[in-house]
Amino acid sequence: MIDVAFLGTAVRPAGTAVVVDVLRATSTITLALASGYERVLVAGTIDEAKALRTPERTLAGEVGCARAPGFDLGNSPEETREPRGAELVLATTNGAPAIVAAAASSDEVLVASLLNLDAVLAQLVGREDILLVCAGTDGAVSMEDVYLAGRLSAQLEGERSDAARIAEAVAAAYPNPVDALEASAGAVGLHREGLESDIAFCAQESVIATVPRLAETVDGIAVIETADEPGI
Amino acid sequence: MIDVAFLGTAVRPAGTAVVVDVLRATSTITLALASGYERVLVAGTIDEAKALRTPERTLAGEVGCARAPGFDLGNSPEETREPRGAELVLATTNGAPAIVAAAASSDEVLVASLLNLDAVLAQLVGREDILLVCAGTDGAVSMEDVYLAGRLSAQLEGERSDAARIAEAVAAAYPNPVDALEASAGAVGLHREGLESDIAFCAQESVIATVPRLAETVDGIAVIETADEPGI
Repeated sequence: MIDVAFLGTAVRPAGTAVVVDVLRATSTITLALASGYERVLVAGTIDEAKALRTPERTLAGEVGCARAPGFDLGNSPEETREPRGAELVLATTNGAPAIVAAAASSDEVLVASLLNLDAVLAQLVGREDILLVCAGTDGAVSMEDVYLAGRLSAQLEGERSDAARIAEAVAAAYPNPVDALEASAGAVGLHREGLESDIAFCAQESVIATVPRLAETVDGIAVIETADEPGI
Repeated sequence: MIDVAFLGTAVRPAGTAVVVDVLRATSTITLALASGYERVLVAGTIDEAKALRTPERTLAGEVGCARAPGFDLGNSPEETREPRGAELVLATTNGAPAIVAAAASSDEVLVASLLNLDAVLAQLVGREDILLVCAGTDGAVSMEDVYLAGRLSAQLEGERSDAARIAEAVAAAYPNPVDALEASAGAVGLHREGLESDIAFCAQESVIATVPRLAETVDGIAVIETADEPGI
């Protein structure tokens, strides 16, 4: 079954959970690993991220879209393009808790963005019991995440739930990805903070072949590394 | 703000909550009041409905789509067409608990189905802070409820949430209501129980002018009566 959880808080156990937070956490994780970070340590809260601080680690994260106080980076994907070390620590309002929640309920967790859409689809071929987890924005269902869930679902084979077909209808309603992102409540916050360039960046489709994957969970921290290529 | 709760369990306080369970609870309540029942006593559980039994009351409800054991009627709308008294007691798996939950969090609660679509829209003119509550099916988001939420949202004026725009995209994807209902997981259960005629009945659009409205809540039972006509 292909199913969609419309909120990170609605996650349930599944064979494979695919977490989606297009604006911006899962886009940031995708680019960070593609850029050379060896792993991303995803924390459920800002305080948990702070507790992971070492001289070798880079802290990234946001509160209300803006960089978290005392952090090295915000949550703009492009800030991760030049790695400062092997490990990025990430704490965000919606996507990071969704990843931690998915990691607590499913052994196999992938991280999807528009940036790596085709690569994620390649990883999902032949899998059953797929749950596409939309992070949402500030506790509310968000357009851009349901849009990407629908893009993914539409390309997968197998029975699908009503939720998956709802997401597919949303994806079909926006021929151009940037329109789905700009239609979202998340975009409003980014415009407010002068971060609108993140929207255009995150709307790029299948420009990265990296698929982030849960390697392990340590003390509630989800350790995300690059998945092996499918079929290897 | 026009917003949509995709599940009855996701209800929150709102100026006006509009509960939607197209297949079949809100369709049944709509027809019951239009047919002459003076009120519908909506119970959150089968046991609570049983406790309301008196010689004058008619008990209606379902478990797994089939009539609840010992009840007078199932949850097929047309079973209410010839009232057996003034009060119908209703307990169902999804819609009834959603109504009880909405009644616990919002003072103003309306009950919508495709049958009374235009009449509900007329009641909503000029209201702000509208939450369209989709009951869902067995704890999962259901196509037919999100479809009707989208039909309602598309005709309302005012700012709307991402969830409302998602529902509108779903509504736009099904030009014919019966296709949205047949695409739902709820329809599968009705076909299984030989109740497919309920699907065609519930797919009828704006054939009833009655709008059921929460009159009061007594010991956790939502008492639903016919709303006054708008503007009176």
